[in-house]
Amino acid sequence: MRIAIDMDEVMADAVKKIRQQYLKEFHVWLSEEALAGKRFQEAVPMAHALEIKKWLHRRGFFRDFEVMKGCQSVIKTWVNDGHEVFVTTAAMEFRNCFEDKYDWLAEHFPFIGWQQIVFCGNKKILNADILIDDNAHNFEHFIGQGVLFTAHHNLSETRYPRVGNWSELQDFVTEFITKK
Amino acid sequence: MRIAIDMDEVMADAVKKIRQQYLKEFHVWLSEEALAGKRFQEAVPMAHALEIKKWLHRRGFFRDFEVMKGCQSVIKTWVNDGHEVFVTTAAMEFRNCFEDKYDWLAEHFPFIGWQQIVFCGNKKILNADILIDDNAHNFEHFIGQGVLFTAHHNLSETRYPRVGNWSELQDFVTEFITKK
Repeated sequence: MRIAIDMDEVMADAVKKIRQQYLKEFHVWLSEEALAGKRFQEAVPMAHALEIKKWLHRRGFFRDFEVMKGCQSVIKTWVNDGHEVFVTTAAMEFRNCFEDKYDWLAEHFPFIGWQQIVFCGNKKILNADILIDDNAHNFEHFIGQGVLFTAHHNLSETRYPRVGNWSELQDFVTEFITKK
Repeated sequence: MRIAIDMDEVMADAVKKIRQQYLKEFHVWLSEEALAGKRFQEAVPMAHALEIKKWLHRRGFFRDFEVMKGCQSVIKTWVNDGHEVFVTTAAMEFRNCFEDKYDWLAEHFPFIGWQQIVFCGNKKILNADILIDDNAHNFEHFIGQGVLFTAHHNLSETRYPRVGNWSELQDFVTEFITKK
């Protein structure tokens, strides 16, 4: 079984970092309610949205995201069970994030080799059995099974199976493997 | 038609740069005969092979490769004909090459967007109709048609269709599309 896993909002808590940065620069904590069903750019004034976009181009911004709870142990289990795990992240939009993302993976996921890392743009280029992602549009041309990882911006998406955390994801994948 | 194209030795003349660097540092021009059928590390003394490996980790080394003759116009034709072109390079082995490769593509292939760029390790993760590559091992688990681009190290490879330059490659792809 080949399992492709998105980084931001699946393995790495990008939202937490953006909310912290927003609090620091604009002195407002973006609540769950303020973000529900929206992307950041829809939840804040336009000038702030432009500023957030700039943060994503800043060297170092992607380096210190927190690891999502349960992520490391579940991926380690998959690797040990002989599954092919690929980390597949749409890094190409942000040139200055490449080394940050690479170093972040080396620090938190030393058991994932460089052979298993993919920085891409359009994810239709991926060939895997499962793709776990918080952006449903990545499933539209994907040849395998898309699994939506819940994030504030995708709450109203209904086309794909959804998991809310890594424990639910582990259960989903176990069932998927059994059925296959 | 989705066409995946390797960078080094297909789009970019990595070998030329390495030979020039070898001449500069070791005062020997590696001839066609010296390299025929061999990888660099097999054609030079071991101490030199280790040095060449170091060059590949040097920031900037991948930035000034020459573009392979005919490459730009052929890719532009494919893009204009509505084919999906993806640049798929095994960049992950060399952390310091990411920005060089990205900037090189932006300079020489401004018509290829970030959505169409893939930095990967193991190319079995790719989903395309054709993969053009100088490393035959990348075809072993590839779901589409592998096309071997001739390089000094792959001269004895016989398992896959081979092209010697971008003109031959264009003809091969045109015929492949017609048959399909």
